[in-house]
Amino acid sequence: VIVYPLESILVKPGDSLLRVFSKTLARNRVRLRSKDIVAVSSKIVGISEKRIRDIHRIKTTREAIGLARRFSLTLPFAQAVLDESDMVIGGVRGALLTIKDGYAVANAGIDRKNAPLNSLVLWPHDPDLSAKTLRDQIRKEFGKQVGVVIVDSRVTPLRLGTTGLAIGAAGFRAVEDIRGNVDLHGREVRITFRAVADALAATAQLVMGESSERKPFAIIREAPVSMESDSGVREAKLAWNRCLYMSQIMPPGHDQSQHN
Amino acid sequence: VIVYPLESILVKPGDSLLRVFSKTLARNRVRLRSKDIVAVSSKIVGISEKRIRDIHRIKTTREAIGLARRFSLTLPFAQAVLDESDMVIGGVRGALLTIKDGYAVANAGIDRKNAPLNSLVLWPHDPDLSAKTLRDQIRKEFGKQVGVVIVDSRVTPLRLGTTGLAIGAAGFRAVEDIRGNVDLHGREVRITFRAVADALAATAQLVMGESSERKPFAIIREAPVSMESDSGVREAKLAWNRCLYMSQIMPPGHDQSQHN
Repeated sequence: VIVYPLESILVKPGDSLLRVFSKTLARNRVRLRSKDIVAVSSKIVGISEKRIRDIHRIKTTREAIGLARRFSLTLPFAQAVLDESDMVIGGVRGALLTIKDGYAVANAGIDRKNAPLNSLVLWPHDPDLSAKTLRDQIRKEFGKQVGVVIVDSRVTPLRLGTTGLAIGAAGFRAVEDIRGNVDLHGREVRITFRAVADALAATAQLVMGESSERKPFAIIREAPVSMESDSGVREAKLAWNRCLYMSQIMPPGHDQSQHN
Repeated sequence: VIVYPLESILVKPGDSLLRVFSKTLARNRVRLRSKDIVAVSSKIVGISEKRIRDIHRIKTTREAIGLARRFSLTLPFAQAVLDESDMVIGGVRGALLTIKDGYAVANAGIDRKNAPLNSLVLWPHDPDLSAKTLRDQIRKEFGKQVGVVIVDSRVTPLRLGTTGLAIGAAGFRAVEDIRGNVDLHGREVRITFRAVADALAATAQLVMGESSERKPFAIIREAPVSMESDSGVREAKLAWNRCLYMSQIMPPGHDQSQHN
């Protein structure tokens, strides 16, 4: 497997993602091949789709004021997270634990880093669709069948630091079901799935950088993935009661006596 | 960044990890370079250190019987997890959420896959030390300054499938503190750390395979890491009350009224 980080130009709201990617490829003198995985940061997908909020135009509610105070957040940020979340579960100093599109992530995926001045960048409306759109555009423009993964940062229980999380994917099987396989001793492997999209996202994030590096794209070549046109990160969703971590947390307003 | 999966011979209890690794390198015709990261699966580190339990020799307790029934586990497995855990927090069908060496992981890191017949393989006693030992042995044997990361599988909140988690590391900075950096717009990045060891583990797991593939080693070349002799995964530990997920879960016996 070879991973190429790609330096890019600064992306502005409304810019065509395909156009930015094409320029980036040319600038880095990388030629696409079929079966390449194109990793792209959720930040520039959000910016290109104008998923941006001006912090001076956010109307705040009483609930946001409470969250901002309790978890040491700015009020516009707390409000934006509240607006974007399916559910706010709780928080720690500086961050809220939210459910967003069925995933358990910090701050509904909203990040203050690398956003245009006085603004917040949100996740794309439908990240799997954004990935599919870029994949289809790349096929038309370059004649190559690639996979696309949209990468955000995530935190891990009881661990310091972020790694990559796939929030959207297209063109390859996002989750591999290896239940039918046998292990080294010939026994059937019963409950294992591989989170391929997340592993690709973590690999991409290793080279993309988190702060000032202008590397919002990476190409992952010769990865052991199954190319498949109709797949997405949506397949990686796990029910609350089957999740090792979240099954231990009561959703707000949930009656604990009904849970076990 | 280039990632080489390495096919290996089957490792037997007590085998020297350095010897297995040396043979594996020769067999795969890969030459080590300084600054390479050597990834190795926790499974074969455990086997080489004889961290193995015979399931017929596990004495079971009443507590294990309760856990086995409640979460559909075999009794020896439930007992082994209980014995290895710092704390059992709860579980879902087929898995327990445990604290092990300060990390929040499934089944205290015990895996039934690819273990010798009728046995369970445990984590090394001190994974950072195991990583350091292998790193020092490689330096003596090959004259190269490498990093070592010990890789296990982990699950992610509300996601199906496993990715790689670093349980031990040596020779490179496991967590990068990028708080002093500035973002693309010149603003200071305040709260971000990068979980470098975990990102390397996820990258390695992408190529190592989860079931019958005999690839317990991978070499990660030209990764953007800081080589440092005195670092380990221990630096990635996060306090319970600072963790976005675990701060929402009461440890067993904890009085909720004291928590907030």
